Amino acid sequence: MHWLKQYRREWLAGDTVAGVVVAMMLIPQGMAYALVAGLPPVTGLYASLLPALAYALFGSSMVQSVGPMAITSLMVATSIGALAPVGSPLYAVLSQQLALVAGVVLFLCGVLRLGFLSNFFSRPVMSGFTSGAALVISLGQCKPLLGMASDSNWAAVHGPSAAIGLGSLGLLVLARYGLPKALASWGRRTADILTKLAPIAVIVGATVVVSMLGPDASGVRTVGVVPGGLPSIQFPGSGAHWRSLLMPALLIGFMVFLSSQSAAQSLAQRRNERIDTNRELLGLGAANLASAVSGGFVVTGSISRSAVNYTAGANTPLASLLTAALLAIALCVPNGWLSLLPLPALAATIMVAVLGMVDFSTLAEAWRHDRSDAATLLATTAGVLLIGVEEGVVLGVVLSSASLVWRSSHPHIAVVGRIPGTEHFRNTERHTVETLPHVLMLRIDSTLVFNNTDAVIARIEQELSTRPQAQHLVLVLSAVNMIDTTALLALTELNKNMREQKRYLHLCEVKGPVMDRLKHSKLLGKELTGQVFLSAAQAYQHLAGEATV
Amino acid sequence: MHWLKQYRREWLAGDTVAGVVVAMMLIPQGMAYALVAGLPPVTGLYASLLPALAYALFGSSMVQSVGPMAITSLMVATSIGALAPVGSPLYAVLSQQLALVAGVVLFLCGVLRLGFLSNFFSRPVMSGFTSGAALVISLGQCKPLLGMASDSNWAAVHGPSAAIGLGSLGLLVLARYGLPKALASWGRRTADILTKLAPIAVIVGATVVVSMLGPDASGVRTVGVVPGGLPSIQFPGSGAHWRSLLMPALLIGFMVFLSSQSAAQSLAQRRNERIDTNRELLGLGAANLASAVSGGFVVTGSISRSAVNYTAGANTPLASLLTAALLAIALCVPNGWLSLLPLPALAATIMVAVLGMVDFSTLAEAWRHDRSDAATLLATTAGVLLIGVEEGVVLGVVLSSASLVWRSSHPHIAVVGRIPGTEHFRNTERHTVETLPHVLMLRIDSTLVFNNTDAVIARIEQELSTRPQAQHLVLVLSAVNMIDTTALLALTELNKNMREQKRYLHLCEVKGPVMDRLKHSKLLGKELTGQVFLSAAQAYQHLAGEATV
Repeated sequence: MHWLKQYRREWLAGDTVAGVVVAMMLIPQGMAYALVAGLPPVTGLYASLLPALAYALFGSSMVQSVGPMAITSLMVATSIGALAPVGSPLYAVLSQQLALVAGVVLFLCGVLRLGFLSNFFSRPVMSGFTSGAALVISLGQCKPLLGMASDSNWAAVHGPSAAIGLGSLGLLVLARYGLPKALASWGRRTADILTKLAPIAVIVGATVVVSMLGPDASGVRTVGVVPGGLPSIQFPGSGAHWRSLLMPALLIGFMVFLSSQSAAQSLAQRRNERIDTNRELLGLGAANLASAVSGGFVVTGSISRSAVNYTAGANTPLASLLTAALLAIALCVPNGWLSLLPLPALAATIMVAVLGMVDFSTLAEAWRHDRSDAATLLATTAGVLLIGVEEGVVLGVVLSSASLVWRSSHPHIAVVGRIPGTEHFRNTERHTVETLPHVLMLRIDSTLVFNNTDAVIARIEQELSTRPQAQHLVLVLSAVNMIDTTALLALTELNKNMREQKRYLHLCEVKGPVMDRLKHSKLLGKELTGQVFLSAAQAYQHLAGEATV
Repeated sequence: MHWLKQYRREWLAGDTVAGVVVAMMLIPQGMAYALVAGLPPVTGLYASLLPALAYALFGSSMVQSVGPMAITSLMVATSIGALAPVGSPLYAVLSQQLALVAGVVLFLCGVLRLGFLSNFFSRPVMSGFTSGAALVISLGQCKPLLGMASDSNWAAVHGPSAAIGLGSLGLLVLARYGLPKALASWGRRTADILTKLAPIAVIVGATVVVSMLGPDASGVRTVGVVPGGLPSIQFPGSGAHWRSLLMPALLIGFMVFLSSQSAAQSLAQRRNERIDTNRELLGLGAANLASAVSGGFVVTGSISRSAVNYTAGANTPLASLLTAALLAIALCVPNGWLSLLPLPALAATIMVAVLGMVDFSTLAEAWRHDRSDAATLLATTAGVLLIGVEEGVVLGVVLSSASLVWRSSHPHIAVVGRIPGTEHFRNTERHTVETLPHVLMLRIDSTLVFNNTDAVIARIEQELSTRPQAQHLVLVLSAVNMIDTTALLALTELNKNMREQKRYLHLCEVKGPVMDRLKHSKLLGKELTGQVFLSAAQAYQHLAGEATV
């Protein structure tokens, strides 16, 4: 909380405005995302209280808004839905346990400094995953939008609800694409903030309409009774399902971290700040633990809400604390009006929010730039839509890692010779160099690891077989930063085969760290048929000298 | 079959001896591995007939011996065992279908030239997998060795069977470690071959003992009736399980390919031949298809048997064809003696064969050379033992790919400057170079891909933030062979942030293939704040000129 000590009075206005704006955004959003997660709406408000406080204590971003988010809510629904029926008490307990396990995972990753794990997720995978999840969420909102129960037949559209739902949808789409232009004369920032507040205006409007019609008469389903008062603090016990929660919690933990991280990073760049990845993990872990013990569910830093927070003027986490305080007040004052919010209007706000997350621009850029990245993106989206949310993201990570392993499996190898009169060794195909007929010098321009070992050895054998007179092979390792066990064993075999053919394997320009490891190997222990030279020049001189004797 | 056209008379003696020796080895081995796969012993002989012929037609190795192998038999048992009870007719049909699917997979991989997929399997993973599978097989043979049914209690040891089993085991261990020395004076090759024939001698001995005791009287279980005659050719129909066989068939296909490939490669190196990976896939695919339609199960090139084949003098696939012919004769002549082979003695031969596959030397070399490789090896073995055979190898591949992605995620980046009087640019920390205060030149020594993008951007931002006066950033891309979509998007964002800070991003020494792709991107389309220079020298001169204006 170092920002509190250095707090400047001129920050207060911005923090206050931002705190109020985000609170107005968060009340309908929190309840809507709780519905996406298959939980009672009030849990979305609980998930926005204590977690915001916990993040302010442990997190590293100044303007992050932590709370429920559409995609992680969907992941809660798909993973808990497999273990308990929606609406059952077990479902609620499991959703809290999931937040607890995810929180512990995130906190441990922070303590163990495992932030680098985000390196496994490429942009195309994240983009494909986000788009797929957004489509899944939108499809899931179609029935509530039209006033239908989740298990009802598509013919059971409820007229008044559909009117409210589709009307809200229309207004929200108009607001999203029309308001920024219409309000342009008010300044871009004001226009931005007012656009983001459109959902609450639409919901308030829909609530007024439904109240006037009389909810029972019209048959439009509403949020229903929202329990008043602050959440009670209790540990989500009944420990039977911890093990089946571990895998979902790991994946959700990753998504929490990645979405929060990208929000924090893009805002930090604009504010010229730095984000400490591992402190970010601690903050998110603490926020999820806080959510778990206060009746909430999985929370994360939301890109859209954090951007509003920043645009509305937030300077410090005081803005988020103010938001939490306003939510607490909303829960404690008589809140009968919350119970009247019509579900079709909430469904419309969710649809518009998540459809904005469908990301065509990354697909277009990937398509222009690198088809295999575009294919990975599309495969991830298809996996999310056709196989499952968690499975889709795993598929994407596997595909992108596989393409990386594959792409690096054919390193550049050059036959080198000496530039006359110097100690420089260059590619024989590009430079006029001198070579010795009984010596083959190969420079390997890559690390030597399992995925390129076969290709390197095959190339070496090919060069050797086309030069039967080459009695000496010198491997120039100036660009080899690493030799793993697979490559070491392959070199050991190469050396053995060369011995049988009465040929000699020499190494030169071995880097320090590589040499430190090779020293303990059998190859350098006693088996090497040739020598280890300091430089290519020394190897050349030595072997040329042999030739003249 | 090009070898047939060029066949030389002097090859005939070697091929004949090798064909006979391998046939003697294969009769007990084939029946034993069928038992490991949970199938009737005769299927092991069927699996050694037609597949050998098919491989001779399509494969590329001259001395490969194709037939049942311990580890692939275990994989058959674990994958079919999940779908049908051992001994049921469905189990037998599924094992043939599995060979069919694996054969199709291998053949397709050959046609599509997917041999490079073996790049995903590192030596430590293969070694850990082999050791784990060998231990699983040995544990599975303990009960047959002691004359117990697979579901019986450990107290139910059958005395006479245990005597036969442990006696055989003792003799085999003695033969394995004692014979090569005892026979050293006969020459190494003869000693080697005789050692490999010890199992058949032990089994014949045990059969004689059991026959003399009277199998019914002693209660020692034997192989039982082996149907005479050649296998009938039929398509393994009843198509209900194709889908559940696909994943096991993919994994088994990989193992078939990898074990066969390593056998073929090590022998080809000794014979100074080359193996065509994709033809090898075709040969193995054809062999498995042949096995599927002739009552067999999954087959592969066996390292141990192929080595015997080579040592015994095999020059061409004629040796394998002779082996197949001898097996066919053994099936067609009265073969009542086969039915008397005692199961405990077969169990002993399996145990000795697979325990020899437990590989401590790779573990020792990995431990000395690279602890993370050793950890991957041990994790793979532990996965095979504790989770499952297929799961263990998947775990190993995931771990080794993950460690590769992680290791390559922190590339070398150098701040460079000009060596006075030249056009060479070198690291400012190692050379005396001239730099411009308003220009930061960074050379990135790696491809720019998703797993190192964060690290590269963080380093760039750090260098920029410590040099507030540096208005121009020049990225020297001489070592960048690739920029993927993730890195491109990150550079695009970097460029955008630099514009907001009124700084300029320049690129230079962009390689041809990288430039071809960048041309289509938004970054180079119009957004780049700076310029693309051909060389670092040009960038330096241009920006230095600006400064002097």
